[in-house]
Amino acid sequence: MIVMKEEATEAEIGHVVERIEEVGCTAHLSEGELLTVIGAIGDRDRVASLGLEGAPGVDHLVPILKPYKLASAQFRKGERTVVEVDGRRLGGEHFGLIAGPCTVESREQTLEVAHAVNDAGAAMLRGGAYKPRTSPYAFQGLGVEGLRLLQEAKDQTGLPIVTEVMDVRDIPDVVEVADVAQVGARNMQNYTLLTELGRAGLPVLLKRGMQATIDEWLMAAEYIAQRGTLDIVLCERGIRTFETATRNTLDISAVPVAQAASHLPVIVDPSHASGRRDLIVPLSRAAIAVGADGIIVDVHPSPEDALCDGPQALVGHELRELAQAVRTLPPLLGRKSGVSEFGAPVRR
Amino acid sequence: MIVMKEEATEAEIGHVVERIEEVGCTAHLSEGELLTVIGAIGDRDRVASLGLEGAPGVDHLVPILKPYKLASAQFRKGERTVVEVDGRRLGGEHFGLIAGPCTVESREQTLEVAHAVNDAGAAMLRGGAYKPRTSPYAFQGLGVEGLRLLQEAKDQTGLPIVTEVMDVRDIPDVVEVADVAQVGARNMQNYTLLTELGRAGLPVLLKRGMQATIDEWLMAAEYIAQRGTLDIVLCERGIRTFETATRNTLDISAVPVAQAASHLPVIVDPSHASGRRDLIVPLSRAAIAVGADGIIVDVHPSPEDALCDGPQALVGHELRELAQAVRTLPPLLGRKSGVSEFGAPVRR
Amino acid sequence: MIVMKEEATEAEIGHVVERIEEVGCTAHLSEGELLTVIGAIGDRDRVASLGLEGAPGVDHLVPILKPYKLASAQFRKGERTVVEVDGRRLGGEHFGLIAGPCTVESREQTLEVAHAVNDAGAAMLRGGAYKPRTSPYAFQGLGVEGLRLLQEAKDQTGLPIVTEVMDVRDIPDVVEVADVAQVGARNMQNYTLLTELGRAGLPVLLKRGMQATIDEWLMAAEYIAQRGTLDIVLCERGIRTFETATRNTLDISAVPVAQAASHLPVIVDPSHASGRRDLIVPLSRAAIAVGADGIIVDVHPSPEDALCDGPQALVGHELRELAQAVRTLPPLLGRKSGVSEFGAPVRR
Amino acid sequence: MIVMKEEATEAEIGHVVERIEEVGCTAHLSEGELLTVIGAIGDRDRVASLGLEGAPGVDHLVPILKPYKLASAQFRKGERTVVEVDGRRLGGEHFGLIAGPCTVESREQTLEVAHAVNDAGAAMLRGGAYKPRTSPYAFQGLGVEGLRLLQEAKDQTGLPIVTEVMDVRDIPDVVEVADVAQVGARNMQNYTLLTELGRAGLPVLLKRGMQATIDEWLMAAEYIAQRGTLDIVLCERGIRTFETATRNTLDISAVPVAQAASHLPVIVDPSHASGRRDLIVPLSRAAIAVGADGIIVDVHPSPEDALCDGPQALVGHELRELAQAVRTLPPLLGRKSGVSEFGAPVRR
Repeated sequence: MIVMKEEATEAEIGHVVERIEEVGCTAHLSEGELLTVIGAIGDRDRVASLGLEGAPGVDHLVPILKPYKLASAQFRKGERTVVEVDGRRLGGEHFGLIAGPCTVESREQTLEVAHAVNDAGAAMLRGGAYKPRTSPYAFQGLGVEGLRLLQEAKDQTGLPIVTEVMDVRDIPDVVEVADVAQVGARNMQNYTLLTELGRAGLPVLLKRGMQATIDEWLMAAEYIAQRGTLDIVLCERGIRTFETATRNTLDISAVPVAQAASHLPVIVDPSHASGRRDLIVPLSRAAIAVGADGIIVDVHPSPEDALCDGPQALVGHELRELAQAVRTLPPLLGRKSGVSEFGAPVRR
Repeated sequence: MIVMKEEATEAEIGHVVERIEEVGCTAHLSEGELLTVIGAIGDRDRVASLGLEGAPGVDHLVPILKPYKLASAQFRKGERTVVEVDGRRLGGEHFGLIAGPCTVESREQTLEVAHAVNDAGAAMLRGGAYKPRTSPYAFQGLGVEGLRLLQEAKDQTGLPIVTEVMDVRDIPDVVEVADVAQVGARNMQNYTLLTELGRAGLPVLLKRGMQATIDEWLMAAEYIAQRGTLDIVLCERGIRTFETATRNTLDISAVPVAQAASHLPVIVDPSHASGRRDLIVPLSRAAIAVGADGIIVDVHPSPEDALCDGPQALVGHELRELAQAVRTLPPLLGRKSGVSEFGAPVRR
Repeated sequence: MIVMKEEATEAEIGHVVERIEEVGCTAHLSEGELLTVIGAIGDRDRVASLGLEGAPGVDHLVPILKPYKLASAQFRKGERTVVEVDGRRLGGEHFGLIAGPCTVESREQTLEVAHAVNDAGAAMLRGGAYKPRTSPYAFQGLGVEGLRLLQEAKDQTGLPIVTEVMDVRDIPDVVEVADVAQVGARNMQNYTLLTELGRAGLPVLLKRGMQATIDEWLMAAEYIAQRGTLDIVLCERGIRTFETATRNTLDISAVPVAQAASHLPVIVDPSHASGRRDLIVPLSRAAIAVGADGIIVDVHPSPEDALCDGPQALVGHELRELAQAVRTLPPLLGRKSGVSEFGAPVRR
Repeated sequence: MIVMKEEATEAEIGHVVERIEEVGCTAHLSEGELLTVIGAIGDRDRVASLGLEGAPGVDHLVPILKPYKLASAQFRKGERTVVEVDGRRLGGEHFGLIAGPCTVESREQTLEVAHAVNDAGAAMLRGGAYKPRTSPYAFQGLGVEGLRLLQEAKDQTGLPIVTEVMDVRDIPDVVEVADVAQVGARNMQNYTLLTELGRAGLPVLLKRGMQATIDEWLMAAEYIAQRGTLDIVLCERGIRTFETATRNTLDISAVPVAQAASHLPVIVDPSHASGRRDLIVPLSRAAIAVGADGIIVDVHPSPEDALCDGPQALVGHELRELAQAVRTLPPLLGRKSGVSEFGAPVRR
């Protein structure tokens, strides 16, 4: 939809129409009292190639169609995508809790937490072997050794593994251990990484960039989908605003908005959204109540010794409160939660 | 806490210390390897009057104490304020639904909605007689005639009235009808209005400005409290961010954050936060689940004819879904909801 | 422009068309491959009254026309408004420096600063008698006594006075002394105040709200204009963003954007935008270079004793640097600056 | 600086002190009337490893030291870094214009633009061979073929080449042609890329992420610096805010703020900041006037056919106006501009 300036001349209008027809679309004029609006009708990609912004007489362009296809709700005609890993399901009627340490630090910590979250009814174990850190002087993760510890935790608990990948060169190592590859918020528009993960084939958990609109988030999913992977879990983890009382501002509305726009499951990360341990349980409850398909939380046995993101990790009674919320709230909203499906935890 | 520049001289440090002592506070030096930090210890107002920002050698100031007193959680030593109007309670263990038309448009609409929300279990009726509108050409409300219609709705249903006041000169008229005076988001820092409402004596529902930090919101409450009114209900109604999928971004975390910082009840307005009718029920659920003390929603019998804010008004089955959420969720979180307390609606 | 959902039915489309015709507008259909877009053509206010957001089958609405008329560039057919006060002009080819203390504190300070800014080539004197303060415990200004001191400064220097008004009840007092009434950023959407100032007749300096879009700022100007005052000076003073290195983020682009959209002069307040004394001179230079019609800065003889906004006040060599920029840069951009027009300062 | 809660116990305070001493730092207590603040004095990295956020009794932490070292102004004791490429200098007293097409599209376009910008006095040629595009369906750049065309433009004009790199696997190809490697805004926190570019050795132009604070931007520079490359040019290109009149909001204050915090040169990209062709000249003037070390602009001979970012490209008279500004303004601010230094353009 091209909105012409009030003072646009006939020639300028004619030129826009010509350009639209040149790329194989149809032009559709609406002449109002004050100005003329021209619709460009035709193939989405052709419309996208018009390049009429800033052309003589053009005031501004209004995109009408969403720029994503494979990630759109229309693509599956209203059916919801259910991501299934080792019998654990996320999406549609399946609610799931993903929990674990922010960073894999040691064998003892990893196994202790893995068993705790399994007992709490988690559907999957999360844990970072490679960590994106704002400071080059901060601990960057154990790398391959961290992946090995996650493998051991998986062997002991049966929990599928979700872990972040930051570098395309690490994908082969990650694929060997991980069941779901996580793309962090800072890498949401790292198109190289998105493309290679789309090719790798395993499900992807795609965090929303802290500055990304919901449309841009879905475009990032489109990058992955376009290479063949439709098993994508969208994860809202807070956006950056002027408010400093929380580390980021959890955009709780993004959950129903993204669910309406896309067939992909949408989960919430209250730990990174708030950066405050005291908010994790209330925000988790809110996420379940708003209709999220899951939540992903940091759990740590001893927050003061955590090498990263200590303040938002959950311990003891908070994990119990959370497990209780995960057990009771989803069924009220017509969901099956991971807990009831998998029964007693596997312990070896 | 005054952080000095690395290159600050002894004389500059001495000058800061002198200034602190001049206003009657005590200076406390911490000399680090690279720089010196000076604490100013003493009466809050004296510390506030230091005016050392930008002084020679001073890098920046870090405020340590919160600038509000009467609105702070410490002021009531952890006890929660319960605002009570005609036997309806909000805050502490009492959850309440406030509902009604965005704008009072006609007798028929007002009474129809009043009975509908009463049936749905609302604790109070909201409705605007004076409307803040971005455009001077838009409908500005019925004024005194609107207040009269609200009075009639109150007579018929028994519901206390919440209505907005924008002009200090309207306070006498509003006080005659309203049980709770609402301060809109655009007027959150209209200090004249806050001060006069603080004097007027009736409870105040204070909406958060769409650009206001939580601290500034509590400072606005302090303006009211300082004139004698401690019956203040804080209302989160969305903040302005870069995301355009919703009209504003509901800052759901602000609920527990404000509840931790203040003794005042905190409610949520999902209608104005989202501007989307399809989000009101999920966001209301999220608000209850996060622990809000109430929600306030727009209800309109025929949204297409509403003179203002049509898109986010609730009708028919949505109001029923909402009533159901209000009935079932608060008790799960240990709350009494307005519904169970007031039983059958009064109908005349 | 009404964008229908992909799944909108014929009946829903028909209903929208009907509604458009009902309010006296013409409907214009564009049927694309995937969806239908309906243009509503007719009187601006009638289009505004459609209320179709959220109607069945409607996806979203795209406003095409700007909602302001009197403030729009079209209203004066490209001619620029020049605000003239006592022979001092602002707008069009006239650049002006407005300077003075943030707050009027004492006779000595006010007169000292008034003479200093007059010597520096200021076109007008600014100074606050009523101050909007975030904290109710902070100094709120001298009130009427402050106005009296401004009158004395005007008598001595011949500088017209710009001062803020916050309360409609103060307008009569302010009008007696002030040549330009200032609306502060927090009151940009205080419609009561805007309306009464539009009636009062004196020129208005309208600060942009820290959360206001440029369109909302122009709508606020429309409120004033609609009551008869077209002598409005728009003032960009920083918007609120996530960045905390400066108190607000100076939106320098807003100057040419507002100048393209409106015939009103646009000035910049670098003091409040940055909150940092070291940035005032560079930001003032940037404002002049971007084409602003003026700048307004805080000047204070002894920043450490200032009762408000001390850090961003200008003293000594900075005022000289600023005066130099005001003298040399505007002519490079084809402007007359206040300095060259008024020659030697008046001193009595 | 650890701020304890008002209700913190002696034991909790003792525990924090213990923890500080455990990591080899010194604890420094300030006991105020209401609360206690504990300073942790010692090595920056040790302080960073404390992990006390969320510990019992701890209210919040206030970082005092900036987290970057190599990028800080202190590191060079106030001296400015001058990045020199083929005799062209940027930083300190040297102002430079970097111009060229957003995307390298064809031989004809690239050479035509290269000669135009050379004639206009550009210090370097910019052009994208690899393009980060929000949509996977948009043109992604010519890749290696684009690099070859840039080489040809360099051979003909003598202009050093600035080009973006997105994928660590492309670094070897880019290094062969480029004189300066550009990191785009979306990759500002792609730590893998930053690290590998730091190792590659050529100068890096680091764009600020649209959501990044100035501190985070300097931390990203630190990642590069830490691997050995101190020739880094910081580039402000607009941040994301609520304002939609421009594509992003140019944070003009970031220029002097970053220059005060760091020894690195800071330039401005008005093209991407605004997304509007009509704003490039005024914003370029503002950037020069605020003291930027250079500007980088898009130039395109025929914007309507540009495959990407057409609207903000400069043509004809605008390039001449820009060249004029680059010629006249920097000397007023005591700078040498690229034009005067390199004299007549090389044309073959």
